[in-house]
Amino acid sequence: SASSIIKQRSATWLRQTNDITLYVSKAAAKTQMEFEYDGPSMKTEVPGPRSKELTKQLGEIQNVGAINFFCNYEESRGNYLVDVDGNRMLDVYTQISSIPIGYNHPSLIKSAFVNRPALGIMPPENFPEKLAESLLSVAPSGMSRVQTMACGSCSNENAYKAMFIWYRNKERGHNIPSDEDVSSCMINQSPGCPDFSILSFMGGFHGRTMGCLATTHSKAIHKLDVPSFDWPIAPFPKLKYPLEEFTRENAQEEARCLEEVEDLIVQWRQKGRPVAGIVIEPIQAEGGDNHATPDFFKKLRNIAHKHGSAFHVDEVQTGGGATGKFWAHEHWGMDDPADIVSFSKKMLTGGFYHKDELQAYRIFNTWMGDPSKNLFLAEVLNVIRRENLLEEVTRSGKTLLQGLYQLQDQYPNLLSSARGQGTFCAIDIRDDATRNSILLKARDKGKTHYSHTDGLIGICPCTNTQPTHTDMDG
Amino acid sequence: SASSIIKQRSATWLRQTNDITLYVSKAAAKTQMEFEYDGPSMKTEVPGPRSKELTKQLGEIQNVGAINFFCNYEESRGNYLVDVDGNRMLDVYTQISSIPIGYNHPSLIKSAFVNRPALGIMPPENFPEKLAESLLSVAPSGMSRVQTMACGSCSNENAYKAMFIWYRNKERGHNIPSDEDVSSCMINQSPGCPDFSILSFMGGFHGRTMGCLATTHSKAIHKLDVPSFDWPIAPFPKLKYPLEEFTRENAQEEARCLEEVEDLIVQWRQKGRPVAGIVIEPIQAEGGDNHATPDFFKKLRNIAHKHGSAFHVDEVQTGGGATGKFWAHEHWGMDDPADIVSFSKKMLTGGFYHKDELQAYRIFNTWMGDPSKNLFLAEVLNVIRRENLLEEVTRSGKTLLQGLYQLQDQYPNLLSSARGQGTFCAIDIRDDATRNSILLKARDKGKTHYSHTDGLIGICPCTNTQPTHTDMDG
Repeated sequence: SASSIIKQRSATWLRQTNDITLYVSKAAAKTQMEFEYDGPSMKTEVPGPRSKELTKQLGEIQNVGAINFFCNYEESRGNYLVDVDGNRMLDVYTQISSIPIGYNHPSLIKSAFVNRPALGIMPPENFPEKLAESLLSVAPSGMSRVQTMACGSCSNENAYKAMFIWYRNKERGHNIPSDEDVSSCMINQSPGCPDFSILSFMGGFHGRTMGCLATTHSKAIHKLDVPSFDWPIAPFPKLKYPLEEFTRENAQEEARCLEEVEDLIVQWRQKGRPVAGIVIEPIQAEGGDNHATPDFFKKLRNIAHKHGSAFHVDEVQTGGGATGKFWAHEHWGMDDPADIVSFSKKMLTGGFYHKDELQAYRIFNTWMGDPSKNLFLAEVLNVIRRENLLEEVTRSGKTLLQGLYQLQDQYPNLLSSARGQGTFCAIDIRDDATRNSILLKARDKGKTHYSHTDGLIGICPCTNTQPTHTDMDG
Repeated sequence: SASSIIKQRSATWLRQTNDITLYVSKAAAKTQMEFEYDGPSMKTEVPGPRSKELTKQLGEIQNVGAINFFCNYEESRGNYLVDVDGNRMLDVYTQISSIPIGYNHPSLIKSAFVNRPALGIMPPENFPEKLAESLLSVAPSGMSRVQTMACGSCSNENAYKAMFIWYRNKERGHNIPSDEDVSSCMINQSPGCPDFSILSFMGGFHGRTMGCLATTHSKAIHKLDVPSFDWPIAPFPKLKYPLEEFTRENAQEEARCLEEVEDLIVQWRQKGRPVAGIVIEPIQAEGGDNHATPDFFKKLRNIAHKHGSAFHVDEVQTGGGATGKFWAHEHWGMDDPADIVSFSKKMLTGGFYHKDELQAYRIFNTWMGDPSKNLFLAEVLNVIRRENLLEEVTRSGKTLLQGLYQLQDQYPNLLSSARGQGTFCAIDIRDDATRNSILLKARDKGKTHYSHTDGLIGICPCTNTQPTHTDMDG
């Protein structure tokens, strides 16, 4: 059974750990040191001539508005990204939060996968074992089921569908559609396609396909010109940092937002668009690194329970260890944190965990993910455990946050609201111009590689929030 | 420039062809023969004991309702799929139309890709060259731009977004949003999120995310319980086969459908939901292998032009060579067949080609596809060219269709409407029970591997259409 596989794997892992840790850890540290570059190294302006040439070439085929430069992935190592002009820069953003343990980690297996199976109908023999070894071994509390998907947007879209199906079956009392359900759904009409909604939060980001986009409210540029759904949008708490110093004000702000959530659920039920699910990020990442307290999330979870809505925690950006725990929601300390937890990016494969009752029997597509990514993930998880990387994230995150506190004390007119969990840290900079100038200077020293001065694409660092912020996730 | 890369690549390819074809072709044929199995070989019932055991294991983690059996991909070769119990079966369906040149083709490169880049911001150095060598080298007529995506649904979702953005800019006369556009879109409201629609066809299948799902009308099981958009749905022609024998009736049927398309465009414009784009498959695959004539598609293309709607040809299922041409729409013989052509499955990567004016500047996500799949695709295209596989598809497709004609002459009460292009062939079987019985007998001889007896997942062969049909795409 899968649980026996897990036990067996855990036993193997423990034995390996006992046997090997003592003599491997020093060797690994040494290899790691030799393997990593000792600092940034800048040869040209960025983008350099080769990047410019390639951007021009690619511009004849695709839009290149978001491209910083072209990369030499073979030469990139650890936290250092090397571009095609030989510039070596510290990668504080891990692409778009999507590189879990740096570039070319020596432990990553080298394998070829020439036959990509349709996982939902004909999986390979080792698939249950590899799932147990990778995704199940880090399953959130209370969840033993997981569905793989190709990307973050597909993960959330399918999680929403699972919540809609679950809600409708609850409403019906069974899962047998009526003739009217069947005929009306074929032409996009209710009751077959019911007027259900997902409640989301202002500032949230959950992806760019049309279902996800109806719950994304971080920047206009993502949503503009695309038809959407009339779904409720609640305010996300605007807290003061550091959280410990503003306990009372922040508690009031969170209470205001929770009250609004309940009001919206009632309103939307009254107008015939009941809230089948609530979706939220543990830290609003793309929307400006906005935090809330564990108390807020616990109460929100309770509101979902009370009103019969599913509770979906979107960990696409926060999952994988950057907060110092494997999942950011672990900081809430709950046994039953969610009904659905979605992931992608650093997890290398998309997908979602779900509770038993959110059966996803009709959740299906051709590829349902890519088993090659599970193999990479299994290896990444081994490295995270073997090298105690979560402890390392907590340790170095504290150093990073202390540094940010010092900087904001030193430059109180420029910097404010330093905040973070693990290395998922952020600070607000007075205005866009100052932010861009700081980023550009850091980039020219190879201490970061982002230098966006427009917000058209809307990737981190964000530019539509005032004061603007710089995040340092990863 | 990209075009010089193409020329250079073409030159290289031509030279290689001249140099190598003579002495490689015989060797390749020999290797291919040795490499392929000579027939099916059945050891156990299907699913066998090992498949059953693994299905039970995976059932504790995921839904397994659609799983036929588990596969041994290492042992699978060419058109023969080997399961974990050692049964060797002819794979007439190529997974879900997604294996372009069979299993473990010896030409497929073996490479590892441990750093998956965020392609939209930091592509690898060889990306423009690999795009030119792979996707651009098979670009549809009139299109020189392509955007990669992770899967078929994401490809269509983003193609729809490109059409919406294009239509809105056309309506505005420029691409600068008003303050009202910006503020209203953040809360999902018009005019920022305009009430535009996509016109689709009854029987069409375009994917399962919420935007795609609003244009999918093949089976209720895909759509049930998921909220949707009020978008127009036109009838797809119900033709009589063989097409040559029913020219007049079929022309009348196509005229009726085209008239309905124009009526719907006018109606939806009048109710404030103008049709920004029309989406159609060249052969409705999942919906029952429904064909239409080149004349129908030409006239539909003209209607789109006339009403200012974009024309999107979804080649996710039909692209990659199974119809005897690389794209099924090439059978229409048009210089300007479409504004957008989307693909996935056999192309190994998702994505869409588009005309210059459908600029996709705001089409963006984290991964934007996976460059490792482009490398596989480049190699697949080399094989298709080197081994003249399109000619082979045409030749063997004729043999297959002749066989189907003979069978339906022999069993006129059981079989009807044999049809196809290339090896993308289908035949209708009298009813579900007969269809299932035929499939099961064929499967037990290893002559196919599908034996679905329920339609809950709705993969091919389809079960919700009467008479039911069996397709043999691939």
